[in-house]
Amino acid sequence: MEFTDVVRNRRMVRRYDPARAVPAEVITSALSNAIRAPSAGFSQGWDFLVLTMTQHREAYWAATADPDDEPDSWLMGLLTAPTLILCLSDEGTYLRRYAEPDKGWTDLDEAHWPARYWDIDTGMAALMILLTAVDEGLGACFFGTPPDKHADVFAAFDIPRDRKLVGVVSMGYAMPHPKSASLRRGLRGLDQVAHYGSFGRHNPETLAPDR
Amino acid sequence: MEFTDVVRNRRMVRRYDPARAVPAEVITSALSNAIRAPSAGFSQGWDFLVLTMTQHREAYWAATADPDDEPDSWLMGLLTAPTLILCLSDEGTYLRRYAEPDKGWTDLDEAHWPARYWDIDTGMAALMILLTAVDEGLGACFFGTPPDKHADVFAAFDIPRDRKLVGVVSMGYAMPHPKSASLRRGLRGLDQVAHYGSFGRHNPETLAPDR
Repeated sequence: MEFTDVVRNRRMVRRYDPARAVPAEVITSALSNAIRAPSAGFSQGWDFLVLTMTQHREAYWAATADPDDEPDSWLMGLLTAPTLILCLSDEGTYLRRYAEPDKGWTDLDEAHWPARYWDIDTGMAALMILLTAVDEGLGACFFGTPPDKHADVFAAFDIPRDRKLVGVVSMGYAMPHPKSASLRRGLRGLDQVAHYGSFGRHNPETLAPDR
Repeated sequence: MEFTDVVRNRRMVRRYDPARAVPAEVITSALSNAIRAPSAGFSQGWDFLVLTMTQHREAYWAATADPDDEPDSWLMGLLTAPTLILCLSDEGTYLRRYAEPDKGWTDLDEAHWPARYWDIDTGMAALMILLTAVDEGLGACFFGTPPDKHADVFAAFDIPRDRKLVGVVSMGYAMPHPKSASLRRGLRGLDQVAHYGSFGRHNPETLAPDR
C-alpha cells in the first residue's frame, strides 16, 4: 500500500475477529519493520514478546486484570485480539552505548539525555508495527499496562527486570466496535500544532525559501 | 512510494544540499502525517516548530553551540540542513485529558502512567516526519538537543516552559556523507529481539495458530 494511504487509514482497532489468527508472515513483517525504526546511536535497545497461543494471551490478561472491576467494553474488545506484542525498552543498552569511545560520555548518567530515547525509540518501533498491520490489511491498537501490574507480567513471561514495558500492540482482523470517546476531541490541525520561526507564529508564509 | 520501501529506504541523512530548500508542500505533507501519529486518549499533546529561514536556523545553532568545542563532522553536516523541525511534547495536556470523566483518573499524578506517552507520542510523530521525507525523495535526521541548551532554545523561539523539546528533525535533499560509526553495530535481527510466549524463547514455531 502507498505510504500515505497507510498513514491515513491507521486507527486504533479495539475489537478483532477471534476466528482469524494473524498469519505468521504478518508478524514477521511487522517485527522486520519494527527493527528498522531509528534508534539513538543505533542502540536498538528493544525487545518484542509475541503472544499468540491462547494460554500466553490469557496469562497476560490474568496478570493485568483488576479483580475488583468488571472489564469495560474497551477491554472486552481487546480480549478478542489473537496476537499481543509486548514492546520492551532496555535503558542499559543506551547508557552503555553512549559511554563508548565514539560517543564519549564517560559515565552512565541519565542526565545527559534530553529525553528517554530508549522508551521513545521503542515507541517508534511500535508505530512501525501499527503501520505494518494496516499495510497488511489488519488492524492493531497500542495500549499501556497499568504500572502496578508490570511486576506480574514480568514474572509471567520471565522478562528481565532491567527491561521496561513501554506498551502492548494488539493485532488481528478488525471487527466493528463503538468509536472511542477520545475521537470527539477532533484532530488538532496544523493551524494549531505547526509554528513557524517562533512559537507564537502560525503563519507558514515564513516558509518562503530564503537563501 | 510503497510503505515497505519507505521503511527499508529510511536512514539518518546527516548532510544536505544547501542549495535546495525543502518545498513548502513537503513540510506540509510531513506535518499532516505527523498529526496522524497515535496518541494516548487522542491527547495530541505535541507542537512542531518549523525553522526554514536562515536567521531562524542560525538562532537554533547559536543557542545549542558549545563555545569550547569545534563542531565535529557530524554536526557540520547537520548545519547544512535547510529545514529544522523542533518536536515538542506537552505533558500537561495528557495529565488533564486523563482526568476527564471518560478516563476517570481523579488527579494529575504522573505515577498512573506506564511511560511518558507525551514524549513517546511526539517521537512517533517525529518518525512520521522522517518517513514522509523518504516518501517525498528527501532525507532527514532525528537528533537530540543537549539538556543544558534547552533553556536557550526556548528563549530564542518563545517556547512555553511547560513544553519539552523531545528532539529535532533536520530535513533536506541528501548529500553523501561518511557512514555513522554506529552502523558498525549491525542490525539486531529478529533472532535476538523477537521472543515468543516467554522472554527466553526465540523460536517462532509457537506462532502456529492455536484456536
